[in-house]
Amino acid sequence: MDKTALFSLSYGVFLLSSKDAGRNNACITNTAMQVASNPERIAISCINSNLTCEMIKNSGFFNLSILDSTCTYDLIERFGMHSGRDLDKFEGFNLKADKNGAYYLDKYTCAVLVCRVTESKDLGSHTLFIAEIEDAFKVSSEPPLTYADYHAKVKPKPQKPAEDKKIIGWKCKICGYYYEGAELPADFVCPWCSHPADDFEPVYE
Amino acid sequence: MDKTALFSLSYGVFLLSSKDAGRNNACITNTAMQVASNPERIAISCINSNLTCEMIKNSGFFNLSILDSTCTYDLIERFGMHSGRDLDKFEGFNLKADKNGAYYLDKYTCAVLVCRVTESKDLGSHTLFIAEIEDAFKVSSEPPLTYADYHAKVKPKPQKPAEDKKIIGWKCKICGYYYEGAELPADFVCPWCSHPADDFEPVYE
Repeated sequence: MDKTALFSLSYGVFLLSSKDAGRNNACITNTAMQVASNPERIAISCINSNLTCEMIKNSGFFNLSILDSTCTYDLIERFGMHSGRDLDKFEGFNLKADKNGAYYLDKYTCAVLVCRVTESKDLGSHTLFIAEIEDAFKVSSEPPLTYADYHAKVKPKPQKPAEDKKIIGWKCKICGYYYEGAELPADFVCPWCSHPADDFEPVYE
Repeated sequence: MDKTALFSLSYGVFLLSSKDAGRNNACITNTAMQVASNPERIAISCINSNLTCEMIKNSGFFNLSILDSTCTYDLIERFGMHSGRDLDKFEGFNLKADKNGAYYLDKYTCAVLVCRVTESKDLGSHTLFIAEIEDAFKVSSEPPLTYADYHAKVKPKPQKPAEDKKIIGWKCKICGYYYEGAELPADFVCPWCSHPADDFEPVYE
């Protein structure tokens, strides 16, 4: 099986936001699609170790901001490569709240879907949530950012490892998976989150 | 709720193929995403009235061809706007079969995912299938066709209705939903399959 064949699946890039026990948090995800009509429902898949995933399980609601093509790497880095357990990701942003109290941003976003979970299925690595869309509205008229354009245009090229230091492993910037060894194969696929080799950073001795 | 906000979700375009009781069939879908790792699983959503959906429910397997940017409207029209109950959609194509006997095409396709259903959930309008990827391989090196590019570049512009005939309704080319009335609102969203107004064709008196 050539796991890199899965990289041909097309996705958008989304800010997934929830609120639980008086606390707001959000993460970046690329997995969301409409799955049914009448009423409109979407499915999202979220990594189980994410705080946002835990919060959605508890609260039963979330909003999904469809990020647009003005979105910066800083935003992806802040919401996608840190845990809400360590910092308040929303600090410093101009915030709006949906009807359930979950935050969304008034920039970088072309549309917001306000959703209530109707079913969830724990798949081990991720939980799949099916949710009814309670409200949907447009924010900007910019085109949505695709996951392919994020990789080609928004994400910085991987930096060359420092030559004077010894690499002992590689860490996935998305989920934290650790690969032991100096050389990470170019076609490596993260076994936890399925992201490619260029989402890994070197770990030095 | 502004249902057109959902049109900002990004998708690919796929040929969804199965085999049941010695018969092959396939349809076009835009809803597929990876939902879990280790083992790799995807979710697809399929309209319940489609023959392919019925066949997947019976057989428990399918393959998903990720269509590439060389894909033509003829292919989409043949597999996406007719029913396999009325014609053999694969007739005349150079066919290959996956390990389960489901066909895929050796052109217009950048990658094929061979899948076995592990769970399914009937959502009324559609059924959501979660499936384990048994095999995955690349076919072409062309970039995948996105659903946005299909709408912008592949799909013909809607033809002007004949002026000498009276329009009494509009029919969705995707699912067959019938809208009664001479004027279809520009922001209309199909209540059965959620496709936009320009996927409707006029029905004359």
